[in-house]
Amino acid sequence: MSDLVALAQTLGAAQYDAGGRLRHLLTLEGLRRDTLEELFSLADSLVEVGERSVKKVPLLRGKTVVLLFFEASTRTRTTFEIAAKRLSADVVTLSVSASATAKGESLLDTIANLQAMQTDAFVVRHADSGAAQLIACHVAPQVAVVNAGDGCHAHPTQALLDLYTIRQHRGSFDQLKVAIVGDVLHSRVARSQLVGLRLLGVKDIRLVGPATLVPDRMACLGGRVCHDLREGLADVDVVLMLRLQRERMAGGFVPSDREYFELYGLTETALAAARPDALVMHPGPINRGVEIASSVADCERSLILPQVTNGIAIRMAVLAQTVGRGGADDA
Amino acid sequence: MSDLVALAQTLGAAQYDAGGRLRHLLTLEGLRRDTLEELFSLADSLVEVGERSVKKVPLLRGKTVVLLFFEASTRTRTTFEIAAKRLSADVVTLSVSASATAKGESLLDTIANLQAMQTDAFVVRHADSGAAQLIACHVAPQVAVVNAGDGCHAHPTQALLDLYTIRQHRGSFDQLKVAIVGDVLHSRVARSQLVGLRLLGVKDIRLVGPATLVPDRMACLGGRVCHDLREGLADVDVVLMLRLQRERMAGGFVPSDREYFELYGLTETALAAARPDALVMHPGPINRGVEIASSVADCERSLILPQVTNGIAIRMAVLAQTVGRGGADDA
Amino acid sequence: MSDLVALAQTLGAAQYDAGGRLRHLLTLEGLRRDTLEELFSLADSLVEVGERSVKKVPLLRGKTVVLLFFEASTRTRTTFEIAAKRLSADVVTLSVSASATAKGESLLDTIANLQAMQTDAFVVRHADSGAAQLIACHVAPQVAVVNAGDGCHAHPTQALLDLYTIRQHRGSFDQLKVAIVGDVLHSRVARSQLVGLRLLGVKDIRLVGPATLVPDRMACLGGRVCHDLREGLADVDVVLMLRLQRERMAGGFVPSDREYFELYGLTETALAAARPDALVMHPGPINRGVEIASSVADCERSLILPQVTNGIAIRMAVLAQTVGRGGADDA
Repeated sequence: MSDLVALAQTLGAAQYDAGGRLRHLLTLEGLRRDTLEELFSLADSLVEVGERSVKKVPLLRGKTVVLLFFEASTRTRTTFEIAAKRLSADVVTLSVSASATAKGESLLDTIANLQAMQTDAFVVRHADSGAAQLIACHVAPQVAVVNAGDGCHAHPTQALLDLYTIRQHRGSFDQLKVAIVGDVLHSRVARSQLVGLRLLGVKDIRLVGPATLVPDRMACLGGRVCHDLREGLADVDVVLMLRLQRERMAGGFVPSDREYFELYGLTETALAAARPDALVMHPGPINRGVEIASSVADCERSLILPQVTNGIAIRMAVLAQTVGRGGADDA
Repeated sequence: MSDLVALAQTLGAAQYDAGGRLRHLLTLEGLRRDTLEELFSLADSLVEVGERSVKKVPLLRGKTVVLLFFEASTRTRTTFEIAAKRLSADVVTLSVSASATAKGESLLDTIANLQAMQTDAFVVRHADSGAAQLIACHVAPQVAVVNAGDGCHAHPTQALLDLYTIRQHRGSFDQLKVAIVGDVLHSRVARSQLVGLRLLGVKDIRLVGPATLVPDRMACLGGRVCHDLREGLADVDVVLMLRLQRERMAGGFVPSDREYFELYGLTETALAAARPDALVMHPGPINRGVEIASSVADCERSLILPQVTNGIAIRMAVLAQTVGRGGADDA
Repeated sequence: MSDLVALAQTLGAAQYDAGGRLRHLLTLEGLRRDTLEELFSLADSLVEVGERSVKKVPLLRGKTVVLLFFEASTRTRTTFEIAAKRLSADVVTLSVSASATAKGESLLDTIANLQAMQTDAFVVRHADSGAAQLIACHVAPQVAVVNAGDGCHAHPTQALLDLYTIRQHRGSFDQLKVAIVGDVLHSRVARSQLVGLRLLGVKDIRLVGPATLVPDRMACLGGRVCHDLREGLADVDVVLMLRLQRERMAGGFVPSDREYFELYGLTETALAAARPDALVMHPGPINRGVEIASSVADCERSLILPQVTNGIAIRMAVLAQTVGRGGADDA
């Protein structure tokens, strides 16, 4: 276990350049707390750009950002595309079917080629855990890699936007009680949220779901495992819902939509166990009537749409920090 | 019937904002005549942009225009993309398969999410009549919706560019005789043309085609139904041809390509029934030898390509009016 | 044969406008040597743009460049997209399945329509030899056509970037010995390289490969045919490897990957026959262990990645020369 911790720290440290500035964003593991705070401050100023009539700042003018999607994702791709364009970057999108790059070797050849086009950043989505990290190990010093979701491993910009949204509504993290509810086992979002929450000082984290989706051994990630929804939500300040993927039912993890909703769906009744002002969050897209009731998704405490808005600002902040790093000197 | 008229007026009125400015373009029904004239004047100035060496004006700089295509359409998508880029907007294209949004609910969730990204406009193409209207009912006040074709209902920018092209060549509308020829029954283009022609004062409109594609009851739309091509074209100033979709033959509406061309194809002989200076128009792509003879499509009186050029100017005008509306104050 | 030469010269001359300036780039055949030298000089200044922090020049601001890909090609499309964007052009990408334009007629209708949108250039990739030429014969005087690969005929920008890379490393061409190795028979790259090398004065060109892929009759293209790799590489200054397409094995041209590599793969041993400072080039993507050993692909003499970098600069130069031609006066 301590080997794994050491490895995580090494990988985390590898996200900084020699000057201690954030170079890649691959995972929240091993990041310094002040890095998150810098990103949040930057997002504070960038969220305002989205409210202007001219939603455009020249921070990445003349930079080429490659969106490299080995896994389909209209939603995440769109947010990164909008974020990069609002920073005035040139955006090139490559949707690569996994079959085209079956061999790891050819993935690296693809990267070497794209890099030879003097591109400045890769935003990578891949079905394999570690893909973004592998790429980051092979790019030139001036190139940034941002992980837009890799397998079951990490989805750091999603977790950052969740944390940023909590910060907006609660200010500080130390005293918060947070429940992560649903398919924790397969969720890269949950893994990144856990790391981020702990980094910001949250002590009471519950991982809530059936034993098939939240096995007891997941406690090692730093949360308390609860198989009962009411118990898991008791007095929490924040409910982080996860999306239930359709394939979980086919895979036998869950008996049926209806039974899942019955036991783990976030209804008004279930939510009553939480604090009266508890925040409700979800990375989207939501399955109404499966993991969340429409009445809860659309209620005043739901921050599902503000999360999307913050997602643009956070992704602008991440791109500005990592891609804009070198350029700041000589632009 | 008067209920339908009232409904149409309500929907039409809903396209204006409180200040009486065009906010959405969903249908030509219920629009004021002066709105069309404003769009035409604006297009007059924008058509000139396409002739410059630097085809770019900053009217929509920093705006995010989402092209939301639930139905494949390279052609219409390309014209809107070019129009938006020449206005300096950032363009994001989403090609969504209809299956992904089988439920109306999830269509609105998609819109809510895209809107939360602080996008400024949706250009919507959808196989279901009313899709753009449904979306327009659910967007925030500062967001514009432009209908790029919905089911059999409406294709207002196509009709506007047709009207604009007629105006360019004839000046006024009152005394014109116009024939719409082909598959009127299934055509959103024909429906929008009919509404537009009547709004601009055209009194003599003929709907020409076989009874399977132009049933007698269509007279209620405001045109005279003719099942004989020569009779329909007699003395007309403008011939608006419609595209014959391949599926009409499979559906049994038309016996065969050849027989259709024989009876309803626009040949030089058929065109001789019209005025000697009659304009020939077609929304494209044309089926040569099916609804129109090559010699007619390529003749001097054919405005098929000028229509495409005007289509860019009209779409720029529509986007500038609707999307640029709010921005004008604080840009 | 002299008829073919005359035809080639006619086609070549058709790439210039009345003022003698390069208007289209369809093939290197019939180009003047000074045209290549002008493109290389321009590329010298543009390669530096890729090294800047702000990789952007305003040469094609307000121009609309259409990437018209009738054949899938992520790689070439990406390089043209990046090249056009770094020149500040608006880029519109159309991926058209060949089936949609089965008839030559409808290809020309597609072009006529896109041109009516006042687009300034078509970058065309097509599985049929002559497609770009056909298009060039039908566009308006102010529109440029750039061939991004047509059938087995030509891929002029690839050959230009190869020549530019050789020039960067060797300075002059007259005394060079060059081997083109692999599937010369089916390669548009090889055809364009041959024409370009001869135009620049290279006298010793060898076409190397098995008789199935390099039939003896190919000597008529202006190279010496060698079926033995060592003999072909003897004392050469430059080795231009070609990619072995997977379908060649299915087609019976080559017995197996392994046997091909055995006989014609560029290994360190094989390369020992060349001059000690011989340059190794490949248009990519490479098949490691099929036509080239990894140790050679990644060695210091390999210019495979610099070729990619130069490809952006050369494509920028070609677009700037052809598309920027008219605009230069009135911008």
